[in-house]
Amino acid sequence: MAVVKLVLAYDGTGFRGWARQPGRRTVQGVLEEALGRVLRRVPPLSVAGRTDAGVHARGQVVSFPAADGDDPDRILRAVNGMLSPEVVVRAATTMPVGFDARRSASAREYRYRIDLGPVPDPFTARFVWHRPGRLALGPMRGAAGHLIGTHDFASFCRAPEAGGTVRELREVAVSRSGDRVEVASRADAFCHQMVRSLVGTLVAVGEGRIEPDAIPGILAARDRAAAGPVAPPHGLTLERVAYGRRR
Amino acid sequence: MAVVKLVLAYDGTGFRGWARQPGRRTVQGVLEEALGRVLRRVPPLSVAGRTDAGVHARGQVVSFPAADGDDPDRILRAVNGMLSPEVVVRAATTMPVGFDARRSASAREYRYRIDLGPVPDPFTARFVWHRPGRLALGPMRGAAGHLIGTHDFASFCRAPEAGGTVRELREVAVSRSGDRVEVASRADAFCHQMVRSLVGTLVAVGEGRIEPDAIPGILAARDRAAAGPVAPPHGLTLERVAYGRRR
Repeated sequence: MAVVKLVLAYDGTGFRGWARQPGRRTVQGVLEEALGRVLRRVPPLSVAGRTDAGVHARGQVVSFPAADGDDPDRILRAVNGMLSPEVVVRAATTMPVGFDARRSASAREYRYRIDLGPVPDPFTARFVWHRPGRLALGPMRGAAGHLIGTHDFASFCRAPEAGGTVRELREVAVSRSGDRVEVASRADAFCHQMVRSLVGTLVAVGEGRIEPDAIPGILAARDRAAAGPVAPPHGLTLERVAYGRRR
Repeated sequence: MAVVKLVLAYDGTGFRGWARQPGRRTVQGVLEEALGRVLRRVPPLSVAGRTDAGVHARGQVVSFPAADGDDPDRILRAVNGMLSPEVVVRAATTMPVGFDARRSASAREYRYRIDLGPVPDPFTARFVWHRPGRLALGPMRGAAGHLIGTHDFASFCRAPEAGGTVRELREVAVSRSGDRVEVASRADAFCHQMVRSLVGTLVAVGEGRIEPDAIPGILAARDRAAAGPVAPPHGLTLERVAYGRRR
């Protein structure tokens, strides 16, 4: 049976994260409700990244088994008519049998945005962590170099996970433009709160509170308490999910 | 008596515009309330641009007479503590006697943002008019050329104004980057709804519904009905107010 693939963007501010929860407004919840009205059934959704409360997405991917008569263009228009601009279907396509938004994904790419300026910016405040003051980028990049690679990231995971906490972190790039610092990270997959924990630790390095060379020991500890604090959710956006050989 | 000058940025989405109105949430209303708590008096505010409901500002300027003990740094911190990030005091300074945010201003600069992409973008939707489809920029620039200069802009003003409707429009620049079109306009001052009326008319030109060479006749008509429609408020931002010889 063919599969419908949706690429979603959303402003996570008003949601308690991706995953459906009784009595709470979540992205999955409002999307299932909208799909239910369009398709006259609520399909089982597979999702590439289960974003936490307050986290945003520009390139989230979901999929569900297609039924006769499912028209991707119509789904896009109808769902956007109900949910946009808070949640937007950027693309809807039919994929071959076997495609699954979560299992088929080869990489996830997140970007964390920090504003170092003296006062917040009303135009970006929903999507950027305002943290006034200096950050030393050289040490942050040194620490990032220690994080890249295949490691047990238990120290950066909220809790032990069924599939373990070994991940292949392929990129952690720290860039700066004016008062804006961005941390782009890409991995095969991330455990729960891993990006925010990596960013919080890098910020602690940029503040001089953790030495870059302490990172290997933090990884080896496999202990949540060894890492820095967890950065707030609203600075984080799931930018892209890669499929196939594209990493 | 010296004068306190504040430079403000705000997200206009949640406000019924700048000007205080009984029973309505306005930028002036919340700012006066915050200043009242900080200064223990509500000072009379002069403002450079009386923005409409839904219009934003990055460089709005207000001023009020200083009293003994008014400390600009303290005002900035205290007001931001109450209103940020929806309304942010970007700078607070003491100015010489005679400075007035409205009367001393030599130019106002607005920017109108349009997104031509097929679906809205949740990250910019509050500040950008999503108007999918094509716009012909060449004719829009031709029309802009006819608008620049000192004219009676009665056809682009919501209503006759006490001081008349002659303005010096110094710049109307239409630029494009990807799906984003921006119209930057600068004048000594703008009458009520003038920027949105100019942009609505330029969009009608870009759609082929008004010829660029019809602009001189629209100006000469001095009749609101001669111009194109008024563009929606949320795409508009007051970017900067200039003082002194800087235009």
